[in-house]
This record gives sequence, C-alpha cells and structure tokens, in this order.
Amino acid sequence: MINYEPFFSHNAKAMKRSEIRELLKLTAKPGIISFAGGLPAPDLFPVEEIKEMSRIVMEREGKTALQYGPTEGDTRLREELAKMMQKDGVNVTSNNLLIVTSSQQGLDLTGKIFIDPGDVVMTSRPTYVGAIQAFNTYGARMIGIEQDDEGTQTALLEAEIDKLGAKGLKPKFIYEIPDFQNPSGITMTLKRRKELLRIADKYDLVIVEDSPYRQLRFEGKTEPSLLGMNSERVLGLYTFSKILLPGFRLGWMAGPNELIQKAVTAKQSVDLCSPPFNQAILFEYLNRGLLHKQIDIIIKAYREKRDFMLAMLAKYMPKLPGLKWTQPQGGLFLWVTLPEDMDAGEMFHSAIEKQVAYVVGTAFYPDGGGRNSFRMNFSYSSHAEIEEGVKRLGQVVAGWKGGSENAIMTP
Amino acid sequence: MINYEPFFSHNAKAMKRSEIRELLKLTAKPGIISFAGGLPAPDLFPVEEIKEMSRIVMEREGKTALQYGPTEGDTRLREELAKMMQKDGVNVTSNNLLIVTSSQQGLDLTGKIFIDPGDVVMTSRPTYVGAIQAFNTYGARMIGIEQDDEGTQTALLEAEIDKLGAKGLKPKFIYEIPDFQNPSGITMTLKRRKELLRIADKYDLVIVEDSPYRQLRFEGKTEPSLLGMNSERVLGLYTFSKILLPGFRLGWMAGPNELIQKAVTAKQSVDLCSPPFNQAILFEYLNRGLLHKQIDIIIKAYREKRDFMLAMLAKYMPKLPGLKWTQPQGGLFLWVTLPEDMDAGEMFHSAIEKQVAYVVGTAFYPDGGGRNSFRMNFSYSSHAEIEEGVKRLGQVVAGWKGGSENAIMTP
Repeated sequence: MINYEPFFSHNAKAMKRSEIRELLKLTAKPGIISFAGGLPAPDLFPVEEIKEMSRIVMEREGKTALQYGPTEGDTRLREELAKMMQKDGVNVTSNNLLIVTSSQQGLDLTGKIFIDPGDVVMTSRPTYVGAIQAFNTYGARMIGIEQDDEGTQTALLEAEIDKLGAKGLKPKFIYEIPDFQNPSGITMTLKRRKELLRIADKYDLVIVEDSPYRQLRFEGKTEPSLLGMNSERVLGLYTFSKILLPGFRLGWMAGPNELIQKAVTAKQSVDLCSPPFNQAILFEYLNRGLLHKQIDIIIKAYREKRDFMLAMLAKYMPKLPGLKWTQPQGGLFLWVTLPEDMDAGEMFHSAIEKQVAYVVGTAFYPDGGGRNSFRMNFSYSSHAEIEEGVKRLGQVVAGWKGGSENAIMTP
Repeated sequence: MINYEPFFSHNAKAMKRSEIRELLKLTAKPGIISFAGGLPAPDLFPVEEIKEMSRIVMEREGKTALQYGPTEGDTRLREELAKMMQKDGVNVTSNNLLIVTSSQQGLDLTGKIFIDPGDVVMTSRPTYVGAIQAFNTYGARMIGIEQDDEGTQTALLEAEIDKLGAKGLKPKFIYEIPDFQNPSGITMTLKRRKELLRIADKYDLVIVEDSPYRQLRFEGKTEPSLLGMNSERVLGLYTFSKILLPGFRLGWMAGPNELIQKAVTAKQSVDLCSPPFNQAILFEYLNRGLLHKQIDIIIKAYREKRDFMLAMLAKYMPKLPGLKWTQPQGGLFLWVTLPEDMDAGEMFHSAIEKQVAYVVGTAFYPDGGGRNSFRMNFSYSSHAEIEEGVKRLGQVVAGWKGGSENAIMTP
C-alpha cells in the first residue's frame, strides 16, 4: 500500500471535503426534507425552450458549437450580457466580460489572480461557504466582519483595516454579496455600499462583488450594484445557476479590462474555455428575450415560497428567547439564529433523525463562530415539504436542551 | 487610474498569456493556413447524433440534466467510461473516476493537489504546453528529460532523480504522454514504460499519464497504458475533445481512489461539478455504442491526413542537413526539427507573411530549448490546405538563412 499523503500539496493536505457538499449527500436520502442545498426549483426550468434552443444551435452552427471556442467566451453571449448589465446601470461592454464555467470558477479565478499564501481577504461574517473554500485553496487568511440588518458593518471593517495597517498589512480584496446575501439573506443598504466604496478608495482596495441573486428581488427598491457605482475598483461575479439553470455550469465575470484580462490568462490554464455548445444555447435564449420572462416566473414562485416559509416558521417554531430569523427581500436563503446556548451542529443529527436538514452556521464563518445558527433554503422544496419540514424543525428546536415539547404546538 | 499590478498574486504576475492561444488568434486570420492549433476536424463531429441525444435527454430527464449534479460526475457516464477502460486493460470501476471540465481541468486539479511552490515535476522535453502552463500556475519547477524515438529517455530520468536526491530533493510526480505525445507524436515503447514504472517504484513516485490521443492509433501495436500496468502509482487524464468533440469541455481522471477523492475535494472549490446536461448527453451517446464507431471514423480520416502531410513534407521540404520530422503512429501532431542554426521563432513571422502557421518549439520546453523545432497539426486542415500550407512552409524554410530558393522545387 502506498501512502499518498506526502505527495499532496500543503493546501491539499488542509483541504476538507466541503461540509455543504457532504451534507447534501446525507440529505439526499429518501424521506428527508432538505433545506440545506442552494438548489433552484427544477419545476421552473424552461426544459422545452432549452430543448428547442439546443436544436436550433445544432442545426445552425453545430460544427462551431462542438469545437473549441475563445477563452473569453462567445462574443454574442458577452454582448447580450453587457446589454443586460447596462440596463442595470453598469457601464460595461463585452470587453469587460469573461464567460466562466460557473461562478464558482469565478471565485477560483479570483483566488488565483489575487491571493498568495497568507494574504488577507476581508469578508462579512457569515459569508458564502464556496468562497471560503475557493480562497482557502490559495492560502488566504480571511477576516470576517460582523453584519447587521444593513449588511457588513463598514465601521468595523474600517477599524479592522486600520488595525492591519498598523501591522503593515493590507487586504488583497474585500469580498461581498450585497444583494440577498448567502447565507443570511441580508441586503446591504445604499449608505453601507457608499461607505464600502469610500473605504476601498481610501485604502486603495479592490472589491469582489458576488452577485448570484441580484435579479431575484421579490419586493422593495433595488440598490445600485457596487460595480455600477464604481467601475474601477469592483470585480463582479455572476451566474446563470439561480436566474435560469445550474446544469450548464455557466456564469460570467465583469470588471476593469485589466482584471478581466488577467482572469482570461488564468482561465487558459484552468479549462481553456467554457463549453461553446452551452454558450451558444444561452445566447439564443437571451437573444430571444426569454431570460427576462423566466426571471419573472422565478421571482413570483420564490416570493410565494419565502412567504410560506416565513409563515410556517412563525407557526411552528417555539417561542424561545433569542430565536429569530431573517426576512429576505429576495434570493434563495434565510438565516436562523438560535438562543446562544444552542448548538446547531449538535442539533443537526437530531434534525436528520427527524428527517429534516439545514446547513450549520459554522460552515459560513471563515474565522470561527456561528455555532448557534443555520441556513435555510426556500427555493427548492414544495409548499407541502416546507410545511412538513418546518414543522419537524420546530419539534427538533423545541425538543433540544432548554426547549420544551409543548412549544411545538405554539401556533 | 488604478494600478492593479500590486493586487496580483505572485503567480498571476508571472502568468503570461498562453503562446499557443495567442498564436491561435493570429493564425485565425482569413487566408492563413494554420497547422498551429490542436483542433479536431469539425467535419467529423457527429452533429446529428448529438442533436438527437440532446433531444432525448431533455425529454427524458430535463429537470435533472439542468440541475446541479454530484462533483464526482454522472454515475452512469462514469460506469460507461470504466467499462471502456476495462476493455483497454485498466483495472478501474466508477469509484476510480472523476468527470472533469476538460482534461485541462484535470491538469489544473493535478497541480492543485500535488504542487507547492518550488516543487519539482519531471516532464519530457518537449512536453504539452497546457501542462507547463497549469503546473507553472502552482509554482512548479519543471525539469525536462530528453526523449528519443522510444519516448522519454528513462536512463537520463533516473540519473536526474539521483542528482535531485543528492540535494535532498524528490519530484512530486513524473508527467508523461506515452501515446502519440503532444507535441512530438512519439509513442513510448513497452520497454521504456516498464523502466518508467520501475523508477516510480524505486523512488516512491507518482506518474501522471496524460492520455488524450491513445484511442487514435492509425497502425501498429497498442502498448499497455501506464495505468493499466500499475494501478497504484498512476493518475490518468482523459478527454472527449480529441476522440469525439471539444465543445462540451468534458474529460475524466482515473486512478487510485485516494487520489481521485482528493481531486474531488479540489474540484468542489473549482466549479462544484461539470455540466450535468453535457454529461447526460455523452452518457446516452456512449450507452448506444456510438463512440466506438465515431473513433473508427476519426482514425480513418486522420490516418489519411497524416499520410498526406508526410507525403507533402517529403515533396515540398528542402533537403537540408538536420531537417527532419517525426512519423507518428496516431494522434494529431508531428514534430519538425530544423537544422541547428535555424530559429523557428524568428522564422514564424516569415511563415505568417507567407500565410502559413505552426507552433514554435520553445512553447513546449518547460526549461528552455527547442528553438530549432516546431509542431504541426494534421487533424484540422483539409488535404488541399495541407498541400498548399506545406508548400508555403517549404518555401519559408528554404528561403530562411542558409536555405536556397532552388530547394523548394525538390520533389
């Protein structure tokens, strides 16, 4: 038997299987109602339209679609996306865009072009687990800044950057998900966005704006995107996974041409180009104006699901001091905070026994914490599953330690 | 204006745009006959079948195909691939396989799991430029070993490993393309394969076997693959790009489960999973036994193209001392060596003027060298283009420095 351990790189030795992915496996067992994954609702996928666009692409340009393509991506698709972003107030052309193989690849390329081992990256607390994973791979030292209802607390951020400065350190970038953040569902206020950009200017920093859900706003006013507010300091990451479908693994990056060019070079060594076949199909889909309609369908369905999950939480969760959850205005997730003495990680096994699943909060904390919290997804499950799942979850929370079984019945 | 340079990682600062990709752009200009790229012949793509399989997948399993999938890849596709590899004498099951987003991603994941900055990687001289790029990104120090007609010279390899050992160093792995190597077209003999595995055992090393062309043998006896000869020390990289189509960006890795598991973990942070839509289509295609037939079609066409290119080289190349080219038994490439005092890099501009292109040899040398050589692809161009292109190339070579215009006319 060969011992492979000594062959692995320093970072590979430290790599842990993603908690989220491992949980997804566990929660894929029959009977379990899972609020764990970040899966979109498959019933909404435009299967017929994609089938039709695939046929059109193969008939019109089969040989090109099955060949290698440029690393930057299909020019027609990039132009469609640039138009879409322009309507959202972002000053970009196709030259500012790079098609990537999922926004997770966007995160990986971001890590690749910016991070040396030991480099500091500022994030919010909590933040997206996939970003933590991607940046960890490059040896980032992540410092999380607490968020409140208005998003990352920029005063704390500035203080932390000052503290680093006193030690001669400077963050490589600030990572943010300003709209319907994963995992918290919180949207950053305009005031905080301005503050964030002021800080970036003051300390000469780049901001990485991860924006998978921005278009999925159920209500309220859309705040300008960070890239829309500042086209020099912001690198944006986007994906089709949540606004259309994840099965094509396509997303894009947008930002200053110099940063995009560096990402293009990095992508050459990573996968040469994203699938031209899939890009051609999506171009056709966007060019026919279908994405806009699809997003409307998704917004309507997810709004109802969010409303329903909030109603079910109000109905089935026990009344415990400190137990609360966020009320997201869009996106796919909400965030539950338990009383401080409760541990969502320990409680997880009890939840699985009751056939209901969530993601433990600790997964979203780059530098420790979050034990008394968990993330719930409301996009994937049906209304019936949401009711039954939240009911079970209410029983688990009520039955755990300080909770009482009676509390389950609280209407 | 912001100066982005200080933000970039050490490796990103050193990243150069791929010479091959940049040349491809140059050579894409109308009128130029390009032997530079590694593109398969688009006329052979099974457009109708892929269109049909896409329709079947969308009708049968549209919702699953458009959703996220497991990081390991579609189980059905992995089982089909395992069966195919078993027939090739490789002892694997689907548990030894990971679907990747192109074999370039296989190279990137290989770099990610094995290489720390400064780690030594052994390659042949020349070797695949995409591997050089991928390993460079992780800060590898590549040492190239000269090859002859039998492949990498294993005696030189062993001596080099001994030299490293004397300095307390040990390579992280040996990178090889044993079948119809890119760029040289050379196939490693059985004797050398055995030697390579003996060395790996003796020094406790892992071998990375890159195998994109293995199934494209035009004639002669197939040697066992390194993974087939040793299932513990070899990690294999494979792709659909050359045996079917590149436009899906799908390939796979195969090897000891422990290495595959590490690659799975690394892949989670890179793109979560490869496109399930494309995987489902390829499963359907393989399951119907269509790949086998397609490979036969490709072999027949590429054999004819190789024969034709060799005939044209014999016809149009000037008779110069030291000028020679390889006679590959399969694959997509052959390798031209010029007289020692000729520089293929300087000559490239003159070739572009004459509207013909190749890849300069230096691109394939991880540690310098190869100035008097270049790679030619015979899979992409038509017979008419091959004749005209080689004719132009003969004029360029003959007209360059020591060459005489008369030599062009040598039949």
